[in-house]
Amino acid sequence: MKIVIAPDSFKGSLSAPDAAKAIERGAKRAFPEADTICIPAADGGEGTLDTLVAATNGQKIPVSVTGPLGEKVKAEYGILGDGKTCVIEMAKASGIPLIPREKLDPLKATTFGTGELIKEALDDGFTTFILALGGSATNDGGAGMLQALGLSLLDDNGAEISLGGAELAHICSVDLSKLDDRINKCQFLIASDVENPLIGPSGASFVFGPQKGATNEMVKRLDACLTHWADEVEKVTGVHLHDRPGAGAAGGIGGAFQAFFPSVMRRGIDVIIEYTGFQTALEEADLVITGEGQVDFQTASGKTPMGIAQQAQVKNVPTVILAGSVGEGIEALYQHGVVSVTSIINKPMDLEEAIENAGELLEKAAEQVVRSFFYQPKKGQLLSLSNC
Amino acid sequence: MKIVIAPDSFKGSLSAPDAAKAIERGAKRAFPEADTICIPAADGGEGTLDTLVAATNGQKIPVSVTGPLGEKVKAEYGILGDGKTCVIEMAKASGIPLIPREKLDPLKATTFGTGELIKEALDDGFTTFILALGGSATNDGGAGMLQALGLSLLDDNGAEISLGGAELAHICSVDLSKLDDRINKCQFLIASDVENPLIGPSGASFVFGPQKGATNEMVKRLDACLTHWADEVEKVTGVHLHDRPGAGAAGGIGGAFQAFFPSVMRRGIDVIIEYTGFQTALEEADLVITGEGQVDFQTASGKTPMGIAQQAQVKNVPTVILAGSVGEGIEALYQHGVVSVTSIINKPMDLEEAIENAGELLEKAAEQVVRSFFYQPKKGQLLSLSNC
Repeated sequence: MKIVIAPDSFKGSLSAPDAAKAIERGAKRAFPEADTICIPAADGGEGTLDTLVAATNGQKIPVSVTGPLGEKVKAEYGILGDGKTCVIEMAKASGIPLIPREKLDPLKATTFGTGELIKEALDDGFTTFILALGGSATNDGGAGMLQALGLSLLDDNGAEISLGGAELAHICSVDLSKLDDRINKCQFLIASDVENPLIGPSGASFVFGPQKGATNEMVKRLDACLTHWADEVEKVTGVHLHDRPGAGAAGGIGGAFQAFFPSVMRRGIDVIIEYTGFQTALEEADLVITGEGQVDFQTASGKTPMGIAQQAQVKNVPTVILAGSVGEGIEALYQHGVVSVTSIINKPMDLEEAIENAGELLEKAAEQVVRSFFYQPKKGQLLSLSNC
Repeated sequence: MKIVIAPDSFKGSLSAPDAAKAIERGAKRAFPEADTICIPAADGGEGTLDTLVAATNGQKIPVSVTGPLGEKVKAEYGILGDGKTCVIEMAKASGIPLIPREKLDPLKATTFGTGELIKEALDDGFTTFILALGGSATNDGGAGMLQALGLSLLDDNGAEISLGGAELAHICSVDLSKLDDRINKCQFLIASDVENPLIGPSGASFVFGPQKGATNEMVKRLDACLTHWADEVEKVTGVHLHDRPGAGAAGGIGGAFQAFFPSVMRRGIDVIIEYTGFQTALEEADLVITGEGQVDFQTASGKTPMGIAQQAQVKNVPTVILAGSVGEGIEALYQHGVVSVTSIINKPMDLEEAIENAGELLEKAAEQVVRSFFYQPKKGQLLSLSNC
């Protein structure tokens, strides 16, 4: 019996690797001799680098870079087990967790550090990149990232503009001449689930600005800045980012990559699946167990458990989902190979208690669902189910 | 596919019949063509009469009797579908639910009404009885019940003592001469899960007195009264009730039945199983679903889900358990044919919310566990699982 364990994180309580370990403990309690493979998943946002490096036995290279508000931060890039593919997770250099909540300020926050991370990796000789977007504290359209790599953004005095989303309004001209020419010899795979355009009511500022600390007034100002930025980018690249799907990812850095980098964009979970060897793990597997903090009607529109189930279905492997909260509309998952969706909550309790005991609850739920799943009707026995 | 659905009640939220219906809806959502049989269970206490009458297509006969505190109450006895077996549920005449909580008083409460119920059934010609104990408000040793059937309990003036547990202290002699002689021509099957003796620290007064409103002082007084009662009973019957297992059931009425009635005592769930046709229902069944509000280490010591699972195991039918709360120690159930124990709670919520939505939660949990259970590994398909 082979079980592939590929949960996302349970936000607020368990990282994806910890969730995988808890599920594995539960499965082993049901069937001590089960063959289990843990592949913690991620959606392209925070945790993507750790997941990819862990799954491929890669390594992490520490780099000191400019943080979102100009302070120095300790970041890192990843090298996959192949020794050739470099993973840049922008949240490591420009992410929300780097700033105390009360200091979040998308008018000032910059992606400059993400550019420094890329530059360091280029200096180290890498040419193949996975760019994990998501979790950014920024709304600068990726301008800071590009400046770190040599792009000149000049104001009406011919001086370089400062860093931060609000500064984009001062751009009078964009000078491509000093942009690092190694970029064009590289391949960039953007891992992102965001399909929002750069500007407008569905754009980066309006949709994601508030969670980065923007007030209503700031949102409008940021959207105007990104509009001006898109106009200037179009003048020098010919790329019309304004309504381009995915350009609004991570405060607009998705658009910067699309306009200035030889890049393709893919759903985060699909990148994870390809690079972690998930498909190889599915060979001869009897069951996939995935999970996430909340599973509901939104899950079917591309969240981690859905991506996992779809891949498993291709190989005729069924999937069970474990979740902290099970909401309405899970029926949509059934046609994608999902057998069942079970909550880990095992008695009336508040969210705090659930979070505090998430590991134990997940382990117990995994044990019970594995027991139910592998019971073979009509055989009159519990296979080799553990009786204790 | 045949599924036997035999839950107990989910106390405070769902009666056993309502729980069975909710589970059936969930099972049918998973497999619309499943063959389902609902046999709501009970433990011999409240609900036993309703369960037995419903399962056998029997009927209920209304009888007006003396309530626990002397007021008139509308009670009933049941006739099973065989037309011959009479069910007396003592809680209907002498139960806690008949009295407002603040008026509970085991010094005064009497089983007289239970005796009137039996008398009525004797008058109607019944000779085969099931006596469902449990849920009593009384601690009178069954003395009131016996008085209603003609037993004389005389004080030192030769006068009949009054009703209630405290009056037992005044008994100077017991006169058997007028006790209804039809009793000895009948068969009485006592359905009770209580194995406590009549008196002492494990006896009726100390263990069950407090939940009937007894203070510490009252408990001691009630125990002394039952001791005197046991002494007097032994004088006339030769039966030593003091430490007899089961004599402490339902305020000591268990002992009265043992001393004065031709009776045998069995675990409530076993009586339910025999009389509801549960064993016949198990023929060709693929799965039994049972459940209860709380399932934990105590469940294995004889509660309804355990009794159900044990019977099913005899016929090689596996059991899954659904519970409002799943506690520690459920592993003890595995060796009795229990495949899995799953909570119906599907997200963090308080007890009030869980109780309010118990039917819907139970339905959803049943659907998911049935989906997991009947998925057949290696077949690459969800059998005929519903995909919507």
